[in-house]
Amino acid sequence: MKRSFIREILEAIDDETISFAGGLPSEKLFPVKDLEKASKKVFKDKKHCQYTISGGIKTLRKKIAKFYCEEGFETSFENILITTGSQQALYIISRFFESKDIVIEKPSYLGAVNIFKTNGLNMSAVKLDNDGIDIKEFKKEFKKSKLAYLIPDFQNPKASRYSNKKRETISKFVEKTGGYLIEDAPYSELYFDKKTESISKYIPNNSFHLGSFSKTLVPGLRIGWVRADKSLIDKLTQIKETIDLHSSSITQHILNEYLENLKSYKKHLNILRKNYFEKMEFFAKSLEKIIPEFEFERPKGGMFIYGKLPNKNTKELVYKALEKKVVYVPGVEFYVDGNISDEIRFNFSHSSKKEIKEGLKRLREIYN
Amino acid sequence: MKRSFIREILEAIDDETISFAGGLPSEKLFPVKDLEKASKKVFKDKKHCQYTISGGIKTLRKKIAKFYCEEGFETSFENILITTGSQQALYIISRFFESKDIVIEKPSYLGAVNIFKTNGLNMSAVKLDNDGIDIKEFKKEFKKSKLAYLIPDFQNPKASRYSNKKRETISKFVEKTGGYLIEDAPYSELYFDKKTESISKYIPNNSFHLGSFSKTLVPGLRIGWVRADKSLIDKLTQIKETIDLHSSSITQHILNEYLENLKSYKKHLNILRKNYFEKMEFFAKSLEKIIPEFEFERPKGGMFIYGKLPNKNTKELVYKALEKKVVYVPGVEFYVDGNISDEIRFNFSHSSKKEIKEGLKRLREIYN
Repeated sequence: MKRSFIREILEAIDDETISFAGGLPSEKLFPVKDLEKASKKVFKDKKHCQYTISGGIKTLRKKIAKFYCEEGFETSFENILITTGSQQALYIISRFFESKDIVIEKPSYLGAVNIFKTNGLNMSAVKLDNDGIDIKEFKKEFKKSKLAYLIPDFQNPKASRYSNKKRETISKFVEKTGGYLIEDAPYSELYFDKKTESISKYIPNNSFHLGSFSKTLVPGLRIGWVRADKSLIDKLTQIKETIDLHSSSITQHILNEYLENLKSYKKHLNILRKNYFEKMEFFAKSLEKIIPEFEFERPKGGMFIYGKLPNKNTKELVYKALEKKVVYVPGVEFYVDGNISDEIRFNFSHSSKKEIKEGLKRLREIYN
Repeated sequence: MKRSFIREILEAIDDETISFAGGLPSEKLFPVKDLEKASKKVFKDKKHCQYTISGGIKTLRKKIAKFYCEEGFETSFENILITTGSQQALYIISRFFESKDIVIEKPSYLGAVNIFKTNGLNMSAVKLDNDGIDIKEFKKEFKKSKLAYLIPDFQNPKASRYSNKKRETISKFVEKTGGYLIEDAPYSELYFDKKTESISKYIPNNSFHLGSFSKTLVPGLRIGWVRADKSLIDKLTQIKETIDLHSSSITQHILNEYLENLKSYKKHLNILRKNYFEKMEFFAKSLEKIIPEFEFERPKGGMFIYGKLPNKNTKELVYKALEKKVVYVPGVEFYVDGNISDEIRFNFSHSSKKEIKEGLKRLREIYN
């Protein structure tokens, strides 16, 4: 099983191993001082530690709704459900659509694939190009399923971004057929040039737009959300309530307090983008120098570089890499029906420049 | 549907309404200063804000395991899975046992009933007496289901505690038949006299023992756990990973840091027990004085007083109560096949003494 393999890899990692495997944000950039300040305020009011409503605290939902409104995507707090990371949003939506057919990208995010399997969704994987999903194939499959799961911004694992044209085509087709789009957008804020409009913006009643503070702020808050039509949010909230009553009210209040200083958050995002762009550039240049046969395109955002090492079985080689104390995820892990063997996903956000160089040098030795 | 009714009640509550309805702990006793101190330490290490393993942080699991060991119930951190409240533990276990038969108490915790319904478990409800479930009936049903959900300490809603004899009979029967017991124990620490041994202690491989810090510390942490055999915990951890990757690492670390000062936690528990006992006594005496026809037994712990108002339809009356700005939960809500009408669950932990007196006076008027 796919999941066990990744776990097998991750469990084999010790402190000396350089990991390009996980989708971890850079710890160095965590704004812990501001979070500590926020938490100090939170604990001043005992009510913040009490049970709260399943949808999430209103003040935080209002702030998230405002982010959408600022981008011209009309949204009220009633369109927002707070979840324990966007992973849980995906789980809840999958329970809602239990046993239905669904179109996914090929390759796709493993966590989603496992959720769909668990909830009996029947996946049909459509080829993902560097400018988005193959439209012809998408239309054919979506016509049947009326449900799709896409990651249009800096996809995991492929790091691709959908073109505006494909976005438009998809939104029109989803609306026309009366289907639903699950748009997973954890990396959307991590752009290197400018932000692209979501597909959901044009189909507010036919979409679930998933966001998260795990990549932009810190994963440990475990706060994500889903934006959808109010009647859908109400149904998802009932499922959420059954699963865990509500996500931590303490971390919701800490985040809410932190976001009171919006300038500081926006500044933080800019630092993050700049830093990740530099890291990506460094990783890309190091790859070109140390492993020039690796074929890839520079991503326009996100956390991953994805590419191809011609004529090598990257899954077999990962065990040798582990012996050399370096690790990545072989591309085949992200395919439901994987018969490819030469692809690799590298994470560039978590390692230091020194580690990137050293890690790629170690890989050079085993790729010879 | 049951859930909607309770929600309907809770949503009708405004700030002026005195609520005996929810299972809310007393905010006044939340140790927010100590939690704030703990959180300050947590934010000193950026790693505490990173992703963590699905089972929960090891240091916290070790501390919870130690609580069991101190009571002679051998437990290692590998027997513990951290969950988002014990609600989530119950959800995860229910997904594990999907579509099986299960014995529950009559009446039982509504949150559990909804989880079982959602996951297709087929419930068979057995009468709960003041010293525990009806044994004859339990044996008959458990023989078929091999699975039971019980709340032996200060049950929700009935506030009853199982006798030692019934505990022994149940543990032996569960072991003999090779079945499983789900023992929900959120109120176990809230005893007024002394702690009773869990049933699970005698069947460590045939039980899931559920605990929570929501009633003993603060609900907003959303930290509960399940204690079970390692091989079962491994399976539950996979389900947990699919649902939300992991519970907030920040609140796990805050709790872990707080528990470093064990003396302080134990002192807090003693204050809580003393305060709740006083509250219960005050509520009971006020009931005897103001609504003497209400039939009940004083609970030995927990948060609820449960009883009977002969010849009154307590569900019909709750709407009148709401008009008078006071609310409780009619007992019928806790019955899967409810054809009783005269029972009531009162929460005594959350309201002040003044509110208790005033609330009962308002009820007096509508019960005439």
